[in-house]
Amino acid sequence: MITAPTAPSFPRVSLNCDMGEGYYRWRLGPDEQLFPLIEYANIACGLHAGDHATMLRMVRLAKQHNVGIGAHPGLDDIKGFGRRKLDVTAEEVYSLALYQLGALKAMVDAEGAVMSHVKPHGMLYFILRDSEELCRAFMKAHKSLTGNGEPLPYLGIAGSNHEKVCAEMGVPFVPEVFVDIDYDPKGNLLGVPQSNPCTTEGIKAKVTSLLTTLSTTDKEGNKLKLPGTERHYTICLHSDMPTALQNVTAARAAIDEWKRAGGK
Amino acid sequence: MITAPTAPSFPRVSLNCDMGEGYYRWRLGPDEQLFPLIEYANIACGLHAGDHATMLRMVRLAKQHNVGIGAHPGLDDIKGFGRRKLDVTAEEVYSLALYQLGALKAMVDAEGAVMSHVKPHGMLYFILRDSEELCRAFMKAHKSLTGNGEPLPYLGIAGSNHEKVCAEMGVPFVPEVFVDIDYDPKGNLLGVPQSNPCTTEGIKAKVTSLLTTLSTTDKEGNKLKLPGTERHYTICLHSDMPTALQNVTAARAAIDEWKRAGGK
Amino acid sequence: MITAPTAPSFPRVSLNCDMGEGYYRWRLGPDEQLFPLIEYANIACGLHAGDHATMLRMVRLAKQHNVGIGAHPGLDDIKGFGRRKLDVTAEEVYSLALYQLGALKAMVDAEGAVMSHVKPHGMLYFILRDSEELCRAFMKAHKSLTGNGEPLPYLGIAGSNHEKVCAEMGVPFVPEVFVDIDYDPKGNLLGVPQSNPCTTEGIKAKVTSLLTTLSTTDKEGNKLKLPGTERHYTICLHSDMPTALQNVTAARAAIDEWKRAGGK
Amino acid sequence: MITAPTAPSFPRVSLNCDMGEGYYRWRLGPDEQLFPLIEYANIACGLHAGDHATMLRMVRLAKQHNVGIGAHPGLDDIKGFGRRKLDVTAEEVYSLALYQLGALKAMVDAEGAVMSHVKPHGMLYFILRDSEELCRAFMKAHKSLTGNGEPLPYLGIAGSNHEKVCAEMGVPFVPEVFVDIDYDPKGNLLGVPQSNPCTTEGIKAKVTSLLTTLSTTDKEGNKLKLPGTERHYTICLHSDMPTALQNVTAARAAIDEWKRAGGK
Repeated sequence: MITAPTAPSFPRVSLNCDMGEGYYRWRLGPDEQLFPLIEYANIACGLHAGDHATMLRMVRLAKQHNVGIGAHPGLDDIKGFGRRKLDVTAEEVYSLALYQLGALKAMVDAEGAVMSHVKPHGMLYFILRDSEELCRAFMKAHKSLTGNGEPLPYLGIAGSNHEKVCAEMGVPFVPEVFVDIDYDPKGNLLGVPQSNPCTTEGIKAKVTSLLTTLSTTDKEGNKLKLPGTERHYTICLHSDMPTALQNVTAARAAIDEWKRAGGK
Repeated sequence: MITAPTAPSFPRVSLNCDMGEGYYRWRLGPDEQLFPLIEYANIACGLHAGDHATMLRMVRLAKQHNVGIGAHPGLDDIKGFGRRKLDVTAEEVYSLALYQLGALKAMVDAEGAVMSHVKPHGMLYFILRDSEELCRAFMKAHKSLTGNGEPLPYLGIAGSNHEKVCAEMGVPFVPEVFVDIDYDPKGNLLGVPQSNPCTTEGIKAKVTSLLTTLSTTDKEGNKLKLPGTERHYTICLHSDMPTALQNVTAARAAIDEWKRAGGK
Repeated sequence: MITAPTAPSFPRVSLNCDMGEGYYRWRLGPDEQLFPLIEYANIACGLHAGDHATMLRMVRLAKQHNVGIGAHPGLDDIKGFGRRKLDVTAEEVYSLALYQLGALKAMVDAEGAVMSHVKPHGMLYFILRDSEELCRAFMKAHKSLTGNGEPLPYLGIAGSNHEKVCAEMGVPFVPEVFVDIDYDPKGNLLGVPQSNPCTTEGIKAKVTSLLTTLSTTDKEGNKLKLPGTERHYTICLHSDMPTALQNVTAARAAIDEWKRAGGK
Repeated sequence: MITAPTAPSFPRVSLNCDMGEGYYRWRLGPDEQLFPLIEYANIACGLHAGDHATMLRMVRLAKQHNVGIGAHPGLDDIKGFGRRKLDVTAEEVYSLALYQLGALKAMVDAEGAVMSHVKPHGMLYFILRDSEELCRAFMKAHKSLTGNGEPLPYLGIAGSNHEKVCAEMGVPFVPEVFVDIDYDPKGNLLGVPQSNPCTTEGIKAKVTSLLTTLSTTDKEGNKLKLPGTERHYTICLHSDMPTALQNVTAARAAIDEWKRAGGK
């Protein structure tokens, strides 16, 4: 397997959440309460959720809490929250990526902050995982974002097209693992409806297991080795679950306990 | 009157049109046919019209025709085409400007082109003309766009808050005049419904008059001196009029004749 | 003052809430929990909030809980949640009313239910209060809704154009009063930002006062006689306040206590 | 093959066009010019195109030109103009149909007109053709539209699920044929991109052939018998082709010539 370059700025383990996924009057996750608990925020960029005013608010909250600011671009589909299957061409992936990444970057620059990473949302994340061509189109936009020759780290699934195309195009890659939804016994990520409902105990146990054994449990409860966890990786928690705050709190507690016990 | 810094890159006189003002399936002006006739394109950025795919198409057409690429940000109002009165705060003007300018800039950068200017659309243009506070909020976003200390030229109404705030904040300013809609006898710009229907002869006559006498005619047919025309200025033509192509062709012909006669 | 015809079907006092004010993935109020507590639901119709799937869900919940089903049409303004000032013509008010009322009515009919009333949302409510011409345009749409010559009751502000136009056009009218936002000393309704934050005790006290003395307290804490409360009227509570469930529970308790004590 | 009940009100042959497919500021077809040329207008209902003000304008134009008023509901997808593949459930088809049919019906009723038929748009048309379950969900909404037990005629593809479900549910059915896009040799309808560009001569020839021989030519130029043309059927022409006006004019001329020659 080709391994993509690592992102030296990323710590051994971290928590990331999708943030600012409201839409004008409507809010989704408890953004304000989550910022103190996480290392990286993936900020929705207006096409699947989010709007310019919300994005600016998120950038400022992230800066204030010293949380890494990532772009969270999605398919151009507010009504489907970027989770519906839509046929898109490589050209469309390229233009929707540029549009969203550029919009967020302008805010980050104007506010004197720095973007830390990029992580696609929902169906776009899966589409890029499943199509090398579309993944390359996205990464072409991604790479153009910084003129200094240093592309931002990309968060994705280790060993998938995410990593393969990052390796091919010289984009730093950070493996991402999930603890509030399930993997099947083969290690494939399952959606919320296919997963067992998560519990704070379950999340804490999974995070602790990842930290100490580089493995988690699959949907059946069997031990599952997760590729990527031997490197610097990041744990994603959904901010739009009704129990999001408790979930993130539990994961945070597990990491903090591990660190207090000497983990690093 | 405070005079803002000039934009040395701008020619003595030029034509600019709002471009890419379609919305997904819908198109508005004859973009493809207008590009060969103009010097500057103001590209809609997705909030009053335009979408990421259309924007990319416009950037490529502009590059191909060697036409200057400007951002044309509008109020966040697709349903009103950015022409309805909406209460907006300075903060909203700032975030909507950043969002749109950043989105276009990312495309321009990725395509190896360069942005030439910024010109707000419709009601946003008028709101900035009428409110110093909102104009400053916009210009704060505008100035942050380029990290190299050289803000892009801003196209607006000479002597209005547009120019005043540009002067105050060190933004190069290009006066803009109109020949397909009318001015009242006091030199105030009138909207399409308040103007007499334009004709190609009328447009050609007005452009020729501007080039040779720095004046036009007002709605009543009387001579009107237009501030700004003693400097490098630009003539705006609406691409969404049914006769847009004929109008721009007429204005182009007038300028070309003047140049052939030694004008510069 | 002209008094509009009453709506015999309405009880002496009732609670109504705006319901289904989510938008696709996003939800606003705790709809499911509120239905058991109220007599009338004002269902958002898709232009300021709501969507066809949410509307159908609301119609079914209302039917199941034996709650009156009202249309809650708003300005055509999702981004502003129907609360922004927008210039609209009488013709636009007429077409947006028909569009929304018709959409809900088709669902109600298809589900074998019956529509009980109409109540405009947010800025549309205020626009109709303030303009006879626009109120007439709305009421023309409203009246056309039922072919049987029996217009649905309209909920609005007693003594305002709401009632005046209802009287003029023969539309049954139900006065509406508010207990989670304030009135100024002259009896003018204030918005959420201008009102003191409400408390469950305050709501209960106001409802009890209304039931027993036909008066409430204004923002200053002084007794305020509320026109309309001598008739069959309805109390509106906002479902989009963070404390909506507690607020409605408190108002419900006050009414139930009054009834147990013999009130009717 | 099960044959659905016919629609006695429909003439032996007629022209129908999709109308009002603009979106706020944007227009698509030359609606005003097409009305005098057609018998039936399929009016977009706001979810794939159209908006309340445009719909009202279309209803009035149809009434003025004595053109049959049909609902033209589409998938809930403005950005894709209702032509993109989207996964929808039967429940969603039911609610989106009710929403759109109800919205148009309220306008038609209010304007003292009568709805003549229903014809789904784009991908929804194809989805219903291909899925009995979804077609039934749509038809359940369709049937609920009129309380008098007389469902409106449904326009669709003869012999497909359109007709099959109409037959099953007692909905009058009108076969629809196309002359500005192609059929493959097996009689399957092809999309615009797969079809040869149409010409006015080709359209006139096809219409004349249909009228006189009940057959057309397929994409290869071979004679193709079209099921449904032995009955009362209707010819659909696209109003969004650049040559729409010429196309409809040519088809109209062919029918008028046939009538003058005694056809009926």
